Amino acid sequence: MDSDKIRENFFGIADIGRNEDGSITRLLFSKEYEEAQNRTRTYMEEAGLTTAIDPVGNLHGVLRSENPDAKTILIGSHLDTVIQGGAYDGLLGIIAGVEAARELGESGYKLNHHLEIIAFNGEEGNDLGGTFGSRCAMGLVPAEEEAYLKKAKAFGLTKDDLLHSKMDTKDKSCFLELHIEQGNTLWQAGEEIGIVNGIVGLVRYKVTAWGQSNHAGTTRMEHRKDAMIGLAKLMVKTDQLARDYGNHMAATFGKVEVTPHAVAVIPGKAEAVLEIRNLDRELLERFFEDLKNLAQELEPISFTFEKLVEKTPQACDKRIMEIMETLCREKHIPHRVMPSGATHDSVAMAHNMPIGMIFVPSKDGISHNGAEYTKWSQVMTGIRLLCETVKTVDKLHI
Amino acid sequence: MDSDKIRENFFGIADIGRNEDGSITRLLFSKEYEEAQNRTRTYMEEAGLTTAIDPVGNLHGVLRSENPDAKTILIGSHLDTVIQGGAYDGLLGIIAGVEAARELGESGYKLNHHLEIIAFNGEEGNDLGGTFGSRCAMGLVPAEEEAYLKKAKAFGLTKDDLLHSKMDTKDKSCFLELHIEQGNTLWQAGEEIGIVNGIVGLVRYKVTAWGQSNHAGTTRMEHRKDAMIGLAKLMVKTDQLARDYGNHMAATFGKVEVTPHAVAVIPGKAEAVLEIRNLDRELLERFFEDLKNLAQELEPISFTFEKLVEKTPQACDKRIMEIMETLCREKHIPHRVMPSGATHDSVAMAHNMPIGMIFVPSKDGISHNGAEYTKWSQVMTGIRLLCETVKTVDKLHI
Repeated sequence: MDSDKIRENFFGIADIGRNEDGSITRLLFSKEYEEAQNRTRTYMEEAGLTTAIDPVGNLHGVLRSENPDAKTILIGSHLDTVIQGGAYDGLLGIIAGVEAARELGESGYKLNHHLEIIAFNGEEGNDLGGTFGSRCAMGLVPAEEEAYLKKAKAFGLTKDDLLHSKMDTKDKSCFLELHIEQGNTLWQAGEEIGIVNGIVGLVRYKVTAWGQSNHAGTTRMEHRKDAMIGLAKLMVKTDQLARDYGNHMAATFGKVEVTPHAVAVIPGKAEAVLEIRNLDRELLERFFEDLKNLAQELEPISFTFEKLVEKTPQACDKRIMEIMETLCREKHIPHRVMPSGATHDSVAMAHNMPIGMIFVPSKDGISHNGAEYTKWSQVMTGIRLLCETVKTVDKLHI
Repeated sequence: MDSDKIRENFFGIADIGRNEDGSITRLLFSKEYEEAQNRTRTYMEEAGLTTAIDPVGNLHGVLRSENPDAKTILIGSHLDTVIQGGAYDGLLGIIAGVEAARELGESGYKLNHHLEIIAFNGEEGNDLGGTFGSRCAMGLVPAEEEAYLKKAKAFGLTKDDLLHSKMDTKDKSCFLELHIEQGNTLWQAGEEIGIVNGIVGLVRYKVTAWGQSNHAGTTRMEHRKDAMIGLAKLMVKTDQLARDYGNHMAATFGKVEVTPHAVAVIPGKAEAVLEIRNLDRELLERFFEDLKNLAQELEPISFTFEKLVEKTPQACDKRIMEIMETLCREKHIPHRVMPSGATHDSVAMAHNMPIGMIFVPSKDGISHNGAEYTKWSQVMTGIRLLCETVKTVDKLHI
């Protein structure tokens, strides 16, 4: 593999949508997106792939096996970015797939599977929902809902566009995705590769602490029912509980509001949104039960919990994980098995086929930011691992 | 003293501004205020006082000593209420003063001082600032400021009105005020009287916790710098510190805001307004130093503190306090010496004369609320103590 050439191709596309501050903005259906898509299409064709663009803007590049009845190994990630995002998030997984296909094609490797590289549209949060392109491909968008169709129309999309982007999934082998970690685990540990064992599920609760609003000057400390102090205690306990659980348990209070929110009044009510994430659904449930028990120790403040959102975890395919682990061991690549805390196109794909994911390190865990960075040597380690994984999967009846 | 008659007079005025929900709204310069003022004026005159209303709406009722060169003992409180306030807050202190004067006048008591009962206007928070009437009387309003005069004009007040309401203070002996506690201390302890040793000072700080905003899914607990968790820890420590200090130390975080305030993002910044109140200025300073030291233990979260407001404590006159204590002991009235956590007209008066304050219990500490309540027997204990205090002060050269 020609590291310099790959890097040149990568930045040729990454630079499209580059802002003055060094960050990149390449939103779904924007002219920057279209330009990047055209350039990626040319790049795919130069790598020997046959390309097509589906009605929702996903770009597909195929390298066919000599066996016409072969199943297809899918590889991909997304071409869009957040506003003021980084170069690596999404695009790297597309480049990795194209370069794996180029390597196999140009070396004359006899594939038992077709390979299809997909550059998905709209994976980042947007009006049509995140992972838009991959959800369309898996038939997971609500194409019968009037309200949704109205939003789609704003992007020039019809109901037929949504429906016709659905892929036939019964002839697909699996979906592989290389992505930057977007967390600090690999970078901090000095490891090159993360083998993802699943994408975590999450539950969000509105947590309300109920106390008694009162005069901040005349109400002695021992007579107070301060809802904010109660909530603060629960926050500290929850944070510690997540640390004690280990196993990548994550608990975050991202939003907080107190009532009546006045300088001289003891808060009578304090609300927060708690998000807990884990790969193990049972662990999420157990954590919440433990949390509720901790809350009961905080009398006289009482707590109520309202579930706002629940997303189930998606496991990665164990056979594919084993292939990746074996390859890392053989090649002495420092690696770890780890969950993905963020959502990816793989989550949508997992509804219809086995998935496998490779993480490469993110410097200081920074992502969704112009400062996003992965060492190029680590990028190449990831691309080579993806390529070897494809070769091994290709030998199996997956 | 005719308890039933006093009660009838009290509720005759208290009912003015009564809302359907039982609460009372009698805002400064409102028609309800004017009606209550007229009724109070008649009531003062029936009690033998000579009345006058100053340009800012303070009502004065005087009982003159036979000695034309006598100094004047002032007694008073405020006639306005908050929106949806209670019956006792303010009005009770006016009634108590009038009844003390009536008792002394009708019994033919030879006064060495003149007595002047004042029903102040606008003590509660309002556009002209709280304790408006008493601050005008003490010459403490910014009558030279254009912006302030503009606000005053909205109430039909001129600069001359503000200036001409200033009382001559050099012939005044002291100011006495009876008020409901507005806290739960006396009620909970089953005590009848609080002898106020001073009105607490307060300091407000904007407390900012600085962490690092990050993805709530991909950032492991051990790599986080969660500003909200840092602030929560400081809140819990501060609350405990105030309890450990005792001595009526009060610490309240009434306002809290996190940034960026999104469900899936670890807060990078969390701000709160901390208010600390105490009678002892040195204790306030020491508390803040201890708090800053506690904050330093919370690395990697760092904290900054910006002072927003500082109000110095006002001490009550020790001679007057001793008179009240002696009277309580002689009459076996369960009592305690205690600070006032709330501001009163006495704070303004203290700028120019000794002050003395009597608290009567507030049921469950409730105030600024239609449910505000003091047992009538406790009211009468307070009025009688005020009357006896006046008689004793009258014998001294205060």
